This record gives sequence, structure tokens and C-alpha cells, in this order.
Amino acid sequence: MALVVQKYGGTSVGDTERIANVARRVATYHARGDKVVVVVSAMSGQTDSLIKLAHQITNRPDEREMDVLMSTGEQVTIALLSITLRHMGIPAVSFTGAQIKVVTDSSHMKARISDVETTRVMKALDEGKVVVVAGFQGVTAEGDITTLGRGGSDTSAVAVAAALKADVCEIYTDVDGVYTTDPNLCDKARKLKKISYDEMLELASVGAKVLQIRSVEFAKKYKVPVLVRSSFNYNEGTWVVEEDNSMEQVIVAGIAYDRNESKVSVKGVPDRPGIAARVFGALAEENIVVDVIVQDIGEGGKASITFTVPKTDLPKALDVIKPCAKELGAEEVASDTNIAKVSVVGVGMRSHAGVASKMFNALAAEGVNILMIATSEIKVSCVIEAKYTELAVRVLHDAFGLDKE
Amino acid sequence: MALVVQKYGGTSVGDTERIANVARRVATYHARGDKVVVVVSAMSGQTDSLIKLAHQITNRPDEREMDVLMSTGEQVTIALLSITLRHMGIPAVSFTGAQIKVVTDSSHMKARISDVETTRVMKALDEGKVVVVAGFQGVTAEGDITTLGRGGSDTSAVAVAAALKADVCEIYTDVDGVYTTDPNLCDKARKLKKISYDEMLELASVGAKVLQIRSVEFAKKYKVPVLVRSSFNYNEGTWVVEEDNSMEQVIVAGIAYDRNESKVSVKGVPDRPGIAARVFGALAEENIVVDVIVQDIGEGGKASITFTVPKTDLPKALDVIKPCAKELGAEEVASDTNIAKVSVVGVGMRSHAGVASKMFNALAAEGVNILMIATSEIKVSCVIEAKYTELAVRVLHDAFGLDKE
Repeated sequence: MALVVQKYGGTSVGDTERIANVARRVATYHARGDKVVVVVSAMSGQTDSLIKLAHQITNRPDEREMDVLMSTGEQVTIALLSITLRHMGIPAVSFTGAQIKVVTDSSHMKARISDVETTRVMKALDEGKVVVVAGFQGVTAEGDITTLGRGGSDTSAVAVAAALKADVCEIYTDVDGVYTTDPNLCDKARKLKKISYDEMLELASVGAKVLQIRSVEFAKKYKVPVLVRSSFNYNEGTWVVEEDNSMEQVIVAGIAYDRNESKVSVKGVPDRPGIAARVFGALAEENIVVDVIVQDIGEGGKASITFTVPKTDLPKALDVIKPCAKELGAEEVASDTNIAKVSVVGVGMRSHAGVASKMFNALAAEGVNILMIATSEIKVSCVIEAKYTELAVRVLHDAFGLDKE
Repeated sequence: MALVVQKYGGTSVGDTERIANVARRVATYHARGDKVVVVVSAMSGQTDSLIKLAHQITNRPDEREMDVLMSTGEQVTIALLSITLRHMGIPAVSFTGAQIKVVTDSSHMKARISDVETTRVMKALDEGKVVVVAGFQGVTAEGDITTLGRGGSDTSAVAVAAALKADVCEIYTDVDGVYTTDPNLCDKARKLKKISYDEMLELASVGAKVLQIRSVEFAKKYKVPVLVRSSFNYNEGTWVVEEDNSMEQVIVAGIAYDRNESKVSVKGVPDRPGIAARVFGALAEENIVVDVIVQDIGEGGKASITFTVPKTDLPKALDVIKPCAKELGAEEVASDTNIAKVSVVGVGMRSHAGVASKMFNALAAEGVNILMIATSEIKVSCVIEAKYTELAVRVLHDAFGLDKE
């Protein structure tokens, strides 16, 4: 008997038949005496069609009202799932984010959870009911409806699990776990049995889209054991948990890649203090997130700064950078969208030297030129030409022996 | 400068273009300094498609969860209308029934409003905002979502108007007022300038579907002046208000008809006390609403009871009545669905004799046989053969001079 929080994403509840599948899975847990809280997303496609409706009116709809609109998506799902469960004879009760008081700040469309009340949920669980909760949504202290941003249902589930001190938070998705790399690129990719929160954060932020980053941060902070698995089969899945000794034996846990970045270079800047601050200050003002940054001193004492920004932000970034470069006396601003970032990730590399050099050697052996390098405690990333992405991922997967357990 | 509550039905907010029309009308009121509260229904078709979704699961979905499901309909509309108003530069804020605490009992799918809190709405109005409220929905004292039943948005609007002590509650619909009779049946039908609550109740309950009955009862109880008008033009509409002297001058205000009833006769019952109680008690237990009742003593001291029930309830009514008739020693149970009820309605008839006889004469002159008669203080109804409905309505409209003001 355990207290289990389960989260089902949009494709898992995409129609009433799939909702019935979810209900059957919930039923097996309920039958064996578990207390079950189910957190659901909007049915797939629902959120997009609500956004479309709003965009028929204006491209910049009021954010408070967008949250009122969008939150109806999950409300439909909680009702349909509860109806299905009750039809199967399982006592169930649904709650919106506001009803169980998933309290957030008032940053509409990207609110952050500050608190989750548990009284109402615990009471229903104690009465033997399955509790069905709308993910993705919360409520401000003033009673306004908020949403958490794309993928926010993961965070809802982990936050509810943390508040209830659940034994596990199961995240059901359309893949059956976290892999050593993308199986679509590398057929030797292997499903991981477990992975640490920190590794998951690095893998997620560099392109493995299994879990919303904030949900992993939340899970790490409150030590919520997360199990990622598929809602379409009964395979084992991957545990996302606290780091343990066995993990440190594994030097590299996975290879991630990201093709959504572009590269900007400001070349030939007279080298004096404050240049980087000026450039990145201007970008920050426009809310452009900069990832890898490299600065070097070239010939004649002139500096060049190269960095990556999301492809979608490139036009805006250039608009900001060009006048700024002129003002700094730079010789040239160049940009390149044909790049990709590949990263090796693993908590084990903290205590093992040589991961970076092994990576560079493996890429060099295949003639893959490295454009930029960035490292963190548990990650080494290389920016390369986009056309080498698949090759680089496969080479690195082999080099670090990830196909073997 | 007035405090105006406006209610727009499903067809008036059927798509984003129509919502823009509503916003433009709201804007003119706001521009002239009125405080405006807008109560809206779900976009037309929305409620039906939500019901369809639930019925894919079961024909008897849990009612608490149905309310969670259905209430999303109006929530979409309030968001879209507020987005539109704000896009037009008009400060607007939306509230669900739960947010402004439209408190109801816990009879899901047919809840009754017990209270409406005004603090949040008044605050927003005082800040110069247009307040957009979801009709049709409320919340129990425990925080569960409820709905008020089909047409409930009218009642929401009147209840909000009553709580706010609004100067007027404007009900926008797809007809431009209340007519002396159905213009589709009688081309001499004339739009009424005003009508009393009681007359409206009788007209509504006998087939004129402009306003939900409960909303009129509410308006009468709290003396809320209601103006019924079209959202598709700027015509004057019809006031539904307290009775005044001028109304008593008009003997008959309108002619209503209803083709949704069927007739049941229990014939040849030994006449002894308690028969009617037995028959109607059995029907009441099954929640079957009985309308016109006639009892008479036929030959040989045997009684017969004839009454009408909604056509949709006829099979259930016969199931109840047949064993009951046997038990009472009745000779026969007969039923007839080819009937209609025509009614003349008017507060003036209280002080004028001869309305009933004028009605009977007019029908007789055209050879329309009267099957049953029922009267109230301000109404005379005749049950006739269905095929005479149009003829009867036209004849009575002429007989009472309703084409002239």
C-alpha cells in the first residue's frame, strides 16, 4: 500500500478511449489498496485550439484571461476521467488547481507554485477515493487562475507529490523512459534504469524532452522519487532519484543534442573591460537566453565574443547586437544557424578525469570540427556543424560504452 | 450613468466575430459611463459537444463531474470576451461562478442560487472595469462546481442584477422581444413594449421560450426590471416589469401554445375518495410533471381522470399508471399524443369577465373542438387536437384584437 501520484500527458488522454486506458491502469493501483492521485494534462490538441481561438482575436491576448481560457483544457480531462472511473465503479473525485489550492505567484502563463494545500485531497483519499487533479494550473492568493507554462503538468504532479509526501511520482508519457541518447538517432540507445536529478536536468536542458526542467528541480528540492514510463505499455521505465554511489561508477549517463540554437559572433572588438557586460546586458533586456559563451583575444589585441541563442530569437538578437557592436567599434557581426550542440552528461565525471579529452578525440577521429566548448561539473558540450549531429551522437555513444550496462 | 447587467446567450457569442459584436455593444455602454456587468453563456454548440464527449463514456455520467465538465463552456466565453474587450482598450476582467461566489445548493445539473457575493464585482466596477461573468454556473458552500440547468444563464444574470441592485438586466437573445404570439405561426404577431412578470411566467411556461422561468421568478421576487432584446440589432425590445395600471387595461397580453404535451385518460374508475391522490402520487414519485387535470363523473357513478404529461414522459407515465389503474378497478387507460394546448394570458382578465367564453366561442366558430380546459387567475388554456394549433392561435389573436396596440 503506497501513496502514488500519477501524471498523464496530453497524448495519454487524447480521446475517451485513451482516457479509459488510463482509468484501467489507475484501477489496478486502487484495487491493490494504493492511494492514488492522478494529475492530467489537457487532451492533446485542446490547448492549441484554445490558443487558436484567442489568436483569432489578437496576437497578444491578455495573459490573465489566457489563463482563464487555457485552464479549461485540463478541467475537461479531470471531469472525463472521473466520469470514466465512476462508471467503472471506482469512487473518484476531480479537483481543479483552484479547488485544491495549488497556490502560485501571479506571473500569468508562467506562474510558479509556492504551496499546495493537502487537506481536501487527503480527506478524499482517506475516504477511499481516487483523486483526479488538473495539472498545469494554479490559483493566486487573490483567487485568480494561473497556468504554469508548457509542460507544467509535470511540475504540478511533482509539487502535489511533494506536498503529500507521496512514495512515488509516476510520469506517464509517450516514451517508456529516459534513454542514453535519442533512439531515433542512434539505434544502440539504451533505456536507463535510473538517473540522478542533476543528470536529468542536464539531459533535459540540452534537448531530452521527457520532463519539464522545473519539475526536476522541484523533485530534487523535495527529494520526490520520480518514475518516467509509458502510458501505452507496462514496461519498467526510468527512475529519476537522488544520486547514489552506483551512479558515480558510471562516468557518462547519456548523450544529449540540441539543434535549436544558432551562433552569433561579434568580431574584432577593441579589448577593454565591460564589453561582455554591454553585449549580454542588451540581450538580457530583451529576454533572450544566451547559452554557450566563448570569448578570446585574437590578433592585434582585438577580442571576439561568440555565443549561442535560440534560433527563434536570432532576428531579435541581431537587432539588439548590431547597434551595440557598432558602438563598441567591432569589425563584424556574423551569425550561423547551421550548428548543433552535443553534450555528454554524467555525475561520475566529477571524479574521473579525461572525459573532455576522450570526447574531443572521438569527434576528431571522425573529422568533426569543434566550434565551441562549454563545460559544467557534470557535462561537457561541444558546438559543431549541424550536419555532423547524428554522427557525433553515435560516435560518442560508442566511445563512452553506453550500449553496455 | 447606470449599473447595467447584460446577458448574452449562446448564439450571440457563437464565434469570435459575434463576440466582437457583443464587445462593441458593451463598449458603447462603457463609453457613456455605465457600470457594465456582462453575463455570458457557452458558445452555441459547445455544451452539446461536451455532453457528447461524456456520453462516449456512459449514458449516465456522474452529475458532480458533469458540472465540472459543462462549466468549462462559459469559462471559454468569459476569457474570449475579456480578451476582445482588452484588445479594444477597454479594461475588463472575467470571473467564473466560483470566483464571484454565485452560491448554490448541491443539486448538480439543476442547482438553485441561494446567494451572490458582490464584493469582488463591485470593486472591479469601481475601478472602471467591465466585469464579465460566467453564466449557468455556481459553487456550493463546500467549493464544488454546480450548474443551473438549461437556460440557467438567464437566472445567473437576474440573480447578479438583484444582488448588485442593478438598474436593469438586459437579456440579449436571437429574437428582439416578447411577442403577442409566435410570429412563425401568426404573421400579425406584434412585439410587446412591456409585460408583467406574471404574464411572462405564464407565457414562458406555456411555450414562449424567450426567458427561463426561474429567471422570471427571480426577477419578480427581487423586482429586477428585465429588458429582452436582440443582440443582432438595436431594436427596442420588451420590458418585463412589475404590473402597473396601464397593463390592467389590456385584457389579454398574448397567446401561447405548447405541442409538447400528451394526454392520458384513466376511464371508468369506481368513484371513491383518494383516487386522484393515488394516481398523481404515483406520477410524482417518478418526477413526472402533470399539467392540466380534469376529473368528471360519468354514467353509472364511475369517474374518469384525464391529465397531460410531457410527451417525453409518456412511456414512463403509462408504466406507472397501468398497474395503478388495475388496482383501482379502472376500465381503461387511453393516451393521445396528437394534442396541443393554446392559452390566452393577461393580468387584465382578473377584472374582466368573459375572457373564457370569448375564447370558447372563437374556437367553436372555427369548428375547433375543446378537449380539456384549465384556468388560472391570469390565464385560460384549452387542450385541442394538434392539427388545429396554428388555426387556433390565429383565431384567438384576432378575437382579442392583439394585432392592435
